[in-house]
Amino acid sequence: MKRSKIYYKKIKLHNPILIVGLPGIGSVGSLVAEHLKNELKAKKFATLLSPYFPHQVIMLPNGKSRLVSNRFYYWKNTKKNGNDLIILLGDAQALTPEGQYEVNEKIVKFFKSMGGKRIITIGGYNIADHYVQNPRVFGVATSQDEINALKEHGIIFGVASGAIWGSAGLIVEFAKRHSINAACLMGETGLVEVDANAAKAVLEKLSEILEIKINMKDIESVKKETEKLIKSIEEAMKEGEPSKENMTYIR
Amino acid sequence: MKRSKIYYKKIKLHNPILIVGLPGIGSVGSLVAEHLKNELKAKKFATLLSPYFPHQVIMLPNGKSRLVSNRFYYWKNTKKNGNDLIILLGDAQALTPEGQYEVNEKIVKFFKSMGGKRIITIGGYNIADHYVQNPRVFGVATSQDEINALKEHGIIFGVASGAIWGSAGLIVEFAKRHSINAACLMGETGLVEVDANAAKAVLEKLSEILEIKINMKDIESVKKETEKLIKSIEEAMKEGEPSKENMTYIR
Amino acid sequence: MKRSKIYYKKIKLHNPILIVGLPGIGSVGSLVAEHLKNELKAKKFATLLSPYFPHQVIMLPNGKSRLVSNRFYYWKNTKKNGNDLIILLGDAQALTPEGQYEVNEKIVKFFKSMGGKRIITIGGYNIADHYVQNPRVFGVATSQDEINALKEHGIIFGVASGAIWGSAGLIVEFAKRHSINAACLMGETGLVEVDANAAKAVLEKLSEILEIKINMKDIESVKKETEKLIKSIEEAMKEGEPSKENMTYIR
Amino acid sequence: MKRSKIYYKKIKLHNPILIVGLPGIGSVGSLVAEHLKNELKAKKFATLLSPYFPHQVIMLPNGKSRLVSNRFYYWKNTKKNGNDLIILLGDAQALTPEGQYEVNEKIVKFFKSMGGKRIITIGGYNIADHYVQNPRVFGVATSQDEINALKEHGIIFGVASGAIWGSAGLIVEFAKRHSINAACLMGETGLVEVDANAAKAVLEKLSEILEIKINMKDIESVKKETEKLIKSIEEAMKEGEPSKENMTYIR
Repeated sequence: MKRSKIYYKKIKLHNPILIVGLPGIGSVGSLVAEHLKNELKAKKFATLLSPYFPHQVIMLPNGKSRLVSNRFYYWKNTKKNGNDLIILLGDAQALTPEGQYEVNEKIVKFFKSMGGKRIITIGGYNIADHYVQNPRVFGVATSQDEINALKEHGIIFGVASGAIWGSAGLIVEFAKRHSINAACLMGETGLVEVDANAAKAVLEKLSEILEIKINMKDIESVKKETEKLIKSIEEAMKEGEPSKENMTYIR
Repeated sequence: MKRSKIYYKKIKLHNPILIVGLPGIGSVGSLVAEHLKNELKAKKFATLLSPYFPHQVIMLPNGKSRLVSNRFYYWKNTKKNGNDLIILLGDAQALTPEGQYEVNEKIVKFFKSMGGKRIITIGGYNIADHYVQNPRVFGVATSQDEINALKEHGIIFGVASGAIWGSAGLIVEFAKRHSINAACLMGETGLVEVDANAAKAVLEKLSEILEIKINMKDIESVKKETEKLIKSIEEAMKEGEPSKENMTYIR
Repeated sequence: MKRSKIYYKKIKLHNPILIVGLPGIGSVGSLVAEHLKNELKAKKFATLLSPYFPHQVIMLPNGKSRLVSNRFYYWKNTKKNGNDLIILLGDAQALTPEGQYEVNEKIVKFFKSMGGKRIITIGGYNIADHYVQNPRVFGVATSQDEINALKEHGIIFGVASGAIWGSAGLIVEFAKRHSINAACLMGETGLVEVDANAAKAVLEKLSEILEIKINMKDIESVKKETEKLIKSIEEAMKEGEPSKENMTYIR
Repeated sequence: MKRSKIYYKKIKLHNPILIVGLPGIGSVGSLVAEHLKNELKAKKFATLLSPYFPHQVIMLPNGKSRLVSNRFYYWKNTKKNGNDLIILLGDAQALTPEGQYEVNEKIVKFFKSMGGKRIITIGGYNIADHYVQNPRVFGVATSQDEINALKEHGIIFGVASGAIWGSAGLIVEFAKRHSINAACLMGETGLVEVDANAAKAVLEKLSEILEIKINMKDIESVKKETEKLIKSIEEAMKEGEPSKENMTYIR
């Protein structure tokens, strides 16, 4: 395998929107995509393998295994003329710049071949050395129309600065090059490695933007656990060193 | 040399099973494959060279040298209709993900071209910070039939979790993609870099699975030396720092 | 995207000279190219993208984004028969040797395809552990004629030794291989990461060499700020540790 | 430039022997090749460039520059039917395994295309944490005939063990694959980064093997300087810390 490959079964979707949530800052992308997939009971229809992913095999509870991969799920909108969704999630991003450029362009081309016209990538925006209680959602987008549309839902443009690493950014750029509208939504995050609060903030925006009801119970409970943990660490901090076990949850 | 290459001489084998034991965790794979090769007096028939292996040449006692390589040995089963064996061992695994994907798929294709239908890769499963006295053997496999067959020999499925790095895992996945039954057997290991006890546990299972008698004397003696060493270190530990020389055997 | 690509709009230039100022030692190249572009109001006409650049997307103040890139600007000389200029600047250089060899040869070929005959690359020459008050400008060039011409403007040849890393050096070499006259001018620098003083020294030489008036006000003010900062740090040093904030400006 | 290239002018040589001395352990290879080239007044006829070499340009005293490279020199033997020599030296070896495999095979093929039948690569064999007063010369070779021939000159076979990294080893292996006799001679070295004593030991053997007189004055004087330095450091050591300046000569 010298190049990345997408293995897929043919399906027909109506004006699909691609939501991309891959591992990254605060795990915001992964949390959002996993939650969406679970709540919408989205179905897997495609797998992307790449020699740029870590050379790893994941052991499964059923005694089988699978290669590290990115996976595409679809969800059929029941509303008349509503957009169907494709959700992309996975174990890893490509490890090298060369790999990132190859894999992310491939994702965009695959989506385009399915008639897709709009992509929303999800990431975290690391702005603080403290846990963010009320995370804002920052954005970049490929067109002024997209910016205007997202601003109406409270996405903040032109404030975040610096660079977006990896798929969340590159997919937006390759979308632009292939005439697909795209935006990257970034939940404000800090301190924790798995930030369910930032993910929840993004999910609430997504729910509005996509006009889809999303049950927040699961992500809410992860968020509460994280916050309980942070509180206990803060209290332990006051008395000395926190336990090692707890610290693994913290960057 | 821009790509990996297999140099081989043509041989005919009867329903060969490929056993893969390359350098890795606890050196379990290497120990098993070397022991098998030696005890069965298997014969070398193919060499895999790769620009993804370390750019090294091994000096030989006879004054010659050879490139770092993976090497294939065959053993003809004397039992009627018994499976012949191919044993793959070597000095190194590919150093990069791109190399791992290339080399491991090449190994599977080569084996397939010889009419092979079943692969067993050997690895270590690092579960403990202590030396494992009675190592279990964990497995993953490509099909429920393979899982069931191996369970009968006490291989434990669905308990080990996480990722398998390198050839032990990737060969199983590429086998699946090329319609070859495959399993990875992992000897439970900890602390020591060269774990003859874990290797012995796997060899005992292999002996059953393959229905081949394997003399365990050599691996048993390595195991005893390791354990003697560990004991002497533990005793030294009680009195202070162990000697540097001994520590080189310990990760 | 497996290879670097230049996206450009066709323009006609008169005997263009290419000035290359990419990120590097003391940011001398970047400062010079940015200043030239701004003062001459040069216009962008080409963008180089590369899978060897960091896999990053830059967030823009207008809510949009762009890939990390190198960018070509042109300036039309109003003097009769005066050379037009092409200015190359960017966010990054290729990250690997393979990438450097590919990208820099591509730049030279692109310039040659536009009828270019002369290239001047800009870099820093790190000679000192202290801030350089009166930076010299060192050079290497592809021909004795070029050396002689530049010596008349006080560029110092044969004194700097060692290696030039990256585009500043490789573009000169690829130019030579494609029969284009080229030189690298290096402003003497030390201590500071962004050395406007070294950049100013190079700009003054460029102004002479290219026979173009360049307003120095902006670079002069950056230089003054840097020197004020250095002075305040030196004073803080006398009294103890400088503040962390200030130190980020210092290598 | 996506691949390594050799730029050469056509020359005719009589049964040339290739001597390879590239940067490596103790700089033994480089010292030997540079000394041979200088003493024999060998002439450059070919240059190897590679995108696997460091992306560097070397500044020259004449104000020009050149890419990091490997360079071929030839020397015409004045003895009737004596072997002509090709000497390969350079600034660097390829940085990655992929590069090493490509560059070293290219070198062997180029030499073969010139009718070459025998290669001797030079390296260092790091055996000691102390300076080696009377360095032995160890060898590996591609055939028993070559081993026997070299043993007559006191080269020691079958004693050195472990791996040879880089060109010194890989060129021998690729020679074997292209039916060219080859050997690697390794001067015993330790402690110093530039070991003129080990180089001298190899040069003395080479002089015998090639039946060529080699003036040793220059290498002898480097050797003496090194030994003087070592002595002064040892004395400084007795009294406390050696000066930093001196230590840069020591690994």
